[in-house]
Amino acid sequence: VARPIVFVSDFGVRDEFVGTCHCVMARIAPDSRIIDLSHGVPPQDVQLGALLLADSVPFIPSDAVLLAVVDPGVGTSRRAIAVETSTGGHLVGPDNGLLSLAWRALGGAGRAVEISSPDVVLLPTSKTFHARDVFSPAAAHLAGGRALDTIGPSIDVDGLVSLRLTEPEVERRSIRSEVLDADRFGNVHVNVRFEHLAAAGLDEVGAFEIGGTAGSIKIRRATTYGELRRGEYGALIDSRGWFAVIRNGGNAAEGLGVQRGDQVWITPAD
Amino acid sequence: VARPIVFVSDFGVRDEFVGTCHCVMARIAPDSRIIDLSHGVPPQDVQLGALLLADSVPFIPSDAVLLAVVDPGVGTSRRAIAVETSTGGHLVGPDNGLLSLAWRALGGAGRAVEISSPDVVLLPTSKTFHARDVFSPAAAHLAGGRALDTIGPSIDVDGLVSLRLTEPEVERRSIRSEVLDADRFGNVHVNVRFEHLAAAGLDEVGAFEIGGTAGSIKIRRATTYGELRRGEYGALIDSRGWFAVIRNGGNAAEGLGVQRGDQVWITPAD
Amino acid sequence: VARPIVFVSDFGVRDEFVGTCHCVMARIAPDSRIIDLSHGVPPQDVQLGALLLADSVPFIPSDAVLLAVVDPGVGTSRRAIAVETSTGGHLVGPDNGLLSLAWRALGGAGRAVEISSPDVVLLPTSKTFHARDVFSPAAAHLAGGRALDTIGPSIDVDGLVSLRLTEPEVERRSIRSEVLDADRFGNVHVNVRFEHLAAAGLDEVGAFEIGGTAGSIKIRRATTYGELRRGEYGALIDSRGWFAVIRNGGNAAEGLGVQRGDQVWITPAD
Repeated sequence: VARPIVFVSDFGVRDEFVGTCHCVMARIAPDSRIIDLSHGVPPQDVQLGALLLADSVPFIPSDAVLLAVVDPGVGTSRRAIAVETSTGGHLVGPDNGLLSLAWRALGGAGRAVEISSPDVVLLPTSKTFHARDVFSPAAAHLAGGRALDTIGPSIDVDGLVSLRLTEPEVERRSIRSEVLDADRFGNVHVNVRFEHLAAAGLDEVGAFEIGGTAGSIKIRRATTYGELRRGEYGALIDSRGWFAVIRNGGNAAEGLGVQRGDQVWITPAD
Repeated sequence: VARPIVFVSDFGVRDEFVGTCHCVMARIAPDSRIIDLSHGVPPQDVQLGALLLADSVPFIPSDAVLLAVVDPGVGTSRRAIAVETSTGGHLVGPDNGLLSLAWRALGGAGRAVEISSPDVVLLPTSKTFHARDVFSPAAAHLAGGRALDTIGPSIDVDGLVSLRLTEPEVERRSIRSEVLDADRFGNVHVNVRFEHLAAAGLDEVGAFEIGGTAGSIKIRRATTYGELRRGEYGALIDSRGWFAVIRNGGNAAEGLGVQRGDQVWITPAD
Repeated sequence: VARPIVFVSDFGVRDEFVGTCHCVMARIAPDSRIIDLSHGVPPQDVQLGALLLADSVPFIPSDAVLLAVVDPGVGTSRRAIAVETSTGGHLVGPDNGLLSLAWRALGGAGRAVEISSPDVVLLPTSKTFHARDVFSPAAAHLAGGRALDTIGPSIDVDGLVSLRLTEPEVERRSIRSEVLDADRFGNVHVNVRFEHLAAAGLDEVGAFEIGGTAGSIKIRRATTYGELRRGEYGALIDSRGWFAVIRNGGNAAEGLGVQRGDQVWITPAD
């Protein structure tokens, strides 16, 4: 049975980039289901794309081919790669670190090839749209059962670009963090996980002082929206494992005046 | 053959919420087609989500499982439910009224369960993303043929939350209505159906005076865009059965200065 | 095996228009894959929709039914058509030129019918949403194997509306062009193809002077983002074959101060 393809990119939904890739994959693997994980990664933000893909691994069908495209270096010498994990999974995308967090979550990169077989890539190959001409065909061929080593020449997995995440600065009862993203509901997600809270001795704190560029605000620990009064803020570990500030019936990001990349200080409120 | 799943939510398309739910469902019911009815319900607007789902019933495949998530009470004591209609259809979502208009359109709720079986819900279960951990698995199991009574314990259908719609105030030759929504094309849809027009004696009127907060405007009855001059307004019953103001080559909502929730008065123009 | 349906429209993703059409098609052709090429065509922009569909032809599965809806004349006397190309492909949409560039790319219109069979169109038929009631059913029936001549009465292909594109004004070493679109990344695409550059003697030029309403700017020829300095502009033939201005790590459309429909002059920079 055909394997599904899970597709993530920074292409957005306004243009035809995603649809064209779907067309290309449907030609090669007409029986493969394509699951659009998200195409809303902020343009060219490799780190957010990598985090999204890795955080999603527990929910992705185990036989899926992962196709990820956030590719500011398209058309340059950065390589187009297909990676096989030690557990037999496959990932396809640019060699810029985008896939690296996901293959770690999947047990590590076992082997890899550079996508270049002339019966895989579309010819002529655009210099600006490898998603269509290189990555989509490779993902579809793998989903259809083609062997990795027929996609292109083998490359050393130790030479693959691996992402180094921006880590928060953790001190005793204080964390200096960075806003990863604000989502549709205005929830603010920062680069802090439960283990950082624990390391700072903040894991049992009942309320936080959250400081942004425009001042600071006291925010109590919560577990969900419904326990907050209308307009009240709450802090919790979100469904992907990140520390997040939410606001019942409101937009926390707007309220705090923060956006992606901004620094946020987390201290106890008392 | 696997049943399709029709999915509606307020998740938008920027974030990965929808994609993650697709992944979860594809693991459980790999052969079920998932149809995204809309994920553009305004955030936390249970009434608009309920209306959209109910208005869509005539077009939804009759064997589909309906999955709807607009869930401001996620993680609180509001129940997660799966409902079987008297005609054998299934609906899955929060017990906040979101499903109630659709099950009425489908012949009424026959029986219901609270989604809680440990081999249905994902563990650990997030307090903020039941769409992923509770609703999607339940919908997928039902689509795959699993029996309703294995999803969780039976609950009394008479105790389910049922939505009461905001009704327009209908008088002789005057209706006080509320804007339900303005769509991509700027069409303004209000909570008035043909029967309200008829009850007010406005069903044969050739032109309306439409009054908003910024004054009123004469608008003739139309049946489609093409019969209007460029920039001209028209009033019609839209494809879902609601009274709507359209504008040829323009944005009626901007022109009238109205948005969702605003009051609009409808009277005859002459 | 069921044929896929490739769907393009100006419906956007906020409302349920696309999802409702998917529902209708899934009822009629439950085994057909529906590929959403794009629903981000600017509202009522028939020319951009037609170009998008035609430019995508090389990537679309050869057995696909093409369904396109950008339809400012919905509900008027403009016809709803299904066209069979001389090579056996099928296209469905309004007779307003939207399909014409694609059927030319597919070898020309062989025969056509007006969609009107009472067992094809949904009844009652909305005057404002033929995508749901007329086009989607026709596309799905064709994808399911139904013969063209059962969809409605035959019409003369020579009488079909055919689109005349806005052509650039090409002179010796100077082209007066029009902005077709600015995409998610801010890339500016104009109505100039390689053959226009060649006709103007600009195909070998190393740098261009690009003039817009707010002045002009020197832009060097590039092949991809990565060879440009951060913030630098480049000019190239894009992945669809159009002359485009890109900007590394920036938004070319904002930088140039141009938007869709604006005029742009292209001359050599030397």
